[in-house]
Amino acid sequence: MSMVDVSSKDVVYREAVAEGVIRLKRETIELIRKGLIEKGDVFTVTTIASIQAVKKTSELLPFCHNIPLTHIGVDYRFLDEERILVRVTVKAYARTGVEMEALVGVATALLNIWDMVKKYEKDEYGQYPGTRIEYIRVVSKVKEKA
Amino acid sequence: MSMVDVSSKDVVYREAVAEGVIRLKRETIELIRKGLIEKGDVFTVTTIASIQAVKKTSELLPFCHNIPLTHIGVDYRFLDEERILVRVTVKAYARTGVEMEALVGVATALLNIWDMVKKYEKDEYGQYPGTRIEYIRVVSKVKEKA
Amino acid sequence: MSMVDVSSKDVVYREAVAEGVIRLKRETIELIRKGLIEKGDVFTVTTIASIQAVKKTSELLPFCHNIPLTHIGVDYRFLDEERILVRVTVKAYARTGVEMEALVGVATALLNIWDMVKKYEKDEYGQYPGTRIEYIRVVSKVKEKA
Amino acid sequence: MSMVDVSSKDVVYREAVAEGVIRLKRETIELIRKGLIEKGDVFTVTTIASIQAVKKTSELLPFCHNIPLTHIGVDYRFLDEERILVRVTVKAYARTGVEMEALVGVATALLNIWDMVKKYEKDEYGQYPGTRIEYIRVVSKVKEKA
Amino acid sequence: MSMVDVSSKDVVYREAVAEGVIRLKRETIELIRKGLIEKGDVFTVTTIASIQAVKKTSELLPFCHNIPLTHIGVDYRFLDEERILVRVTVKAYARTGVEMEALVGVATALLNIWDMVKKYEKDEYGQYPGTRIEYIRVVSKVKEKA
Amino acid sequence: MSMVDVSSKDVVYREAVAEGVIRLKRETIELIRKGLIEKGDVFTVTTIASIQAVKKTSELLPFCHNIPLTHIGVDYRFLDEERILVRVTVKAYARTGVEMEALVGVATALLNIWDMVKKYEKDEYGQYPGTRIEYIRVVSKVKEKA
Repeated sequence: MSMVDVSSKDVVYREAVAEGVIRLKRETIELIRKGLIEKGDVFTVTTIASIQAVKKTSELLPFCHNIPLTHIGVDYRFLDEERILVRVTVKAYARTGVEMEALVGVATALLNIWDMVKKYEKDEYGQYPGTRIEYIRVVSKVKEKA
Repeated sequence: MSMVDVSSKDVVYREAVAEGVIRLKRETIELIRKGLIEKGDVFTVTTIASIQAVKKTSELLPFCHNIPLTHIGVDYRFLDEERILVRVTVKAYARTGVEMEALVGVATALLNIWDMVKKYEKDEYGQYPGTRIEYIRVVSKVKEKA
Repeated sequence: MSMVDVSSKDVVYREAVAEGVIRLKRETIELIRKGLIEKGDVFTVTTIASIQAVKKTSELLPFCHNIPLTHIGVDYRFLDEERILVRVTVKAYARTGVEMEALVGVATALLNIWDMVKKYEKDEYGQYPGTRIEYIRVVSKVKEKA
Repeated sequence: MSMVDVSSKDVVYREAVAEGVIRLKRETIELIRKGLIEKGDVFTVTTIASIQAVKKTSELLPFCHNIPLTHIGVDYRFLDEERILVRVTVKAYARTGVEMEALVGVATALLNIWDMVKKYEKDEYGQYPGTRIEYIRVVSKVKEKA
Repeated sequence: MSMVDVSSKDVVYREAVAEGVIRLKRETIELIRKGLIEKGDVFTVTTIASIQAVKKTSELLPFCHNIPLTHIGVDYRFLDEERILVRVTVKAYARTGVEMEALVGVATALLNIWDMVKKYEKDEYGQYPGTRIEYIRVVSKVKEKA
Repeated sequence: MSMVDVSSKDVVYREAVAEGVIRLKRETIELIRKGLIEKGDVFTVTTIASIQAVKKTSELLPFCHNIPLTHIGVDYRFLDEERILVRVTVKAYARTGVEMEALVGVATALLNIWDMVKKYEKDEYGQYPGTRIEYIRVVSKVKEKA
């Protein structure tokens, strides 16, 4: 058992985009839109959490190689009154793809949004009946020819 | 802006359960069932990745407090021929809840499954048309009275 | 040689406040005030960097004990047209003080401000003739009686 | 599969001592004794490396709980002209023992000594024919009654 | 004092193999062989712990450079009824050798085996009279000509 | 918001030097000079703390890229009877500068000196009336032509 041997692969330009969606209460989405979340600006904090997690991908996923990345970008869109979409783009010159890095960025971003709005999402019993990460997927992968 | 002040909260017993689902190809699920995934035993490796990520929650989510945990458990179920459900349980004596820890465990587990079966999920263009984390949610939270 | 033995000390409430000042160009301070720094909102990003560094204190300073903290707060003040003051407050129930944690928070905050405004501070030769962390100090330490 | 549930165990005083031995060339031992190793004072650097590794035990060994430690001590003895003994003592109030922490401290100390004297131990082919960690063991474990 | 300057060295292919042996009770070895260790599959978990530790080498050993690795492999052999041998192979294109990485992988693997079988190795007083890492050594190093 | 895209920049030789000063009591400086600080040799321990922090720069400062470094050097000078100057040099072949790495090294070194002499600097109320990091600045940056 091993971390796959990529010694004979070429160092080429790589890019990956992943995205995911979190569903929150309408009132929570309103608070985010208005910048009224008590813990701070949700998208700025979340972007930092996401970028930092992307850099830790090889610590989180045992079979991922440690890859020095050249770019990490995080974008947001309100899909409707209950949904936020997060999209993460990662670039690198590497011997292996960076889609797991982009996925880690999306998952961490969605979880950090959750963490910042916990207070507004919990019901009277401290449960989260409606909060939900609805999906996470890879949008695209690019690998330049060597 | 700050990491919430929990100094005046009591240290009480806490428990949280979170779960999530990943959809893979039928052939990939078959390979997992038969223990034929080249990178190794998917559930053992994934459990380790999940446990290690749970312990890193306060590094991943900036507003989470560092909490010494007393238990982390990871379970799996094949929901149908295309879906695996992951459930993570976390326990601690702490001043704040551990649902984010459980969610980090689920997200990392699902991503690690993905990472281990990448090879079988990619199409001829290196894309993942069908692979998808379908949802992540909190199942339950328990907080003992002080 | 050892990490000091605090086994016989009582777990009591601890608090520490540290502060520091960075001097930047007037134009840079203006851009920060107006929220025009290209890399994003300086104080939100810096607070996250500071909080995350505080939690890593025992990784950065070998003789520091790993202490679960109950609060980390980061505040800013424009001292004049060229200076920003950062103040970090840390709280914990612990066997040893948390002033090093507060100091790590201040140092990291000041360095992160620097990192976010590098572009505006560099001269034509890529040097930083005027940028300067002017001081870092402990403001106060509190230790409750056991 | 899980990180063992210690929720119902008592928090009691724990102590563990582990030790290990590295065999080096006589000339290398001489250089260490005389403080002539180019990379710096071997025992000071090694103690720091060991202390920092002990604190990371739960990151290195997946089933180890994250335990705030109250003491880490590292001691050395020249056993003979070719051998150095390292002994690490760890203390904590915890629900589980700290012998793995002490063992991680010993292993890291021995490896760091190796790293600092590589240059003197390598033969003309860049190999280490004689360098060897000879053993690592637990000396004793103490667990106070609840 | 410094982390050695390797700026003028060439980036060449590097490979290192290290190995080590742990001695356990015959009954424990039997349980491992039969896959009956309660904490899970010893070799799968240990391989993950080892791979993750290898990637952390520059965090554990202060003078080691952070090197993006292209391969980490971990193998096991039952030497006799009381001994398991672990062998770790590491590959990279780097300015400096990777033998410390391989050694960290072996040490962590042996310690993780210990951690997983603690319960079976302890005597009635909670001590480990027979458990012992018997040796750790570098098997070989390869450095391609520039 | 993103970690700046350096994909199109050339990998060139980079070097940065930063420095800073800490002011301590005369008696403390005397103890350091004489090697009488109880926690150990201040400059050796501090150099290790500084080197380890430099390698963590991209974990501490969210917008910093993870850069494999080729050299980290730490030097000290007693400026007068109350002041120690720390100077850190960092080298790398990279797509972006390494001045933040050098600054992190200086800040951590100064904080570690503080941590090692806390006992001698505290007054009867446990405060630090005179201890002070007096400044931190970048001395020079070098970037080779591509």
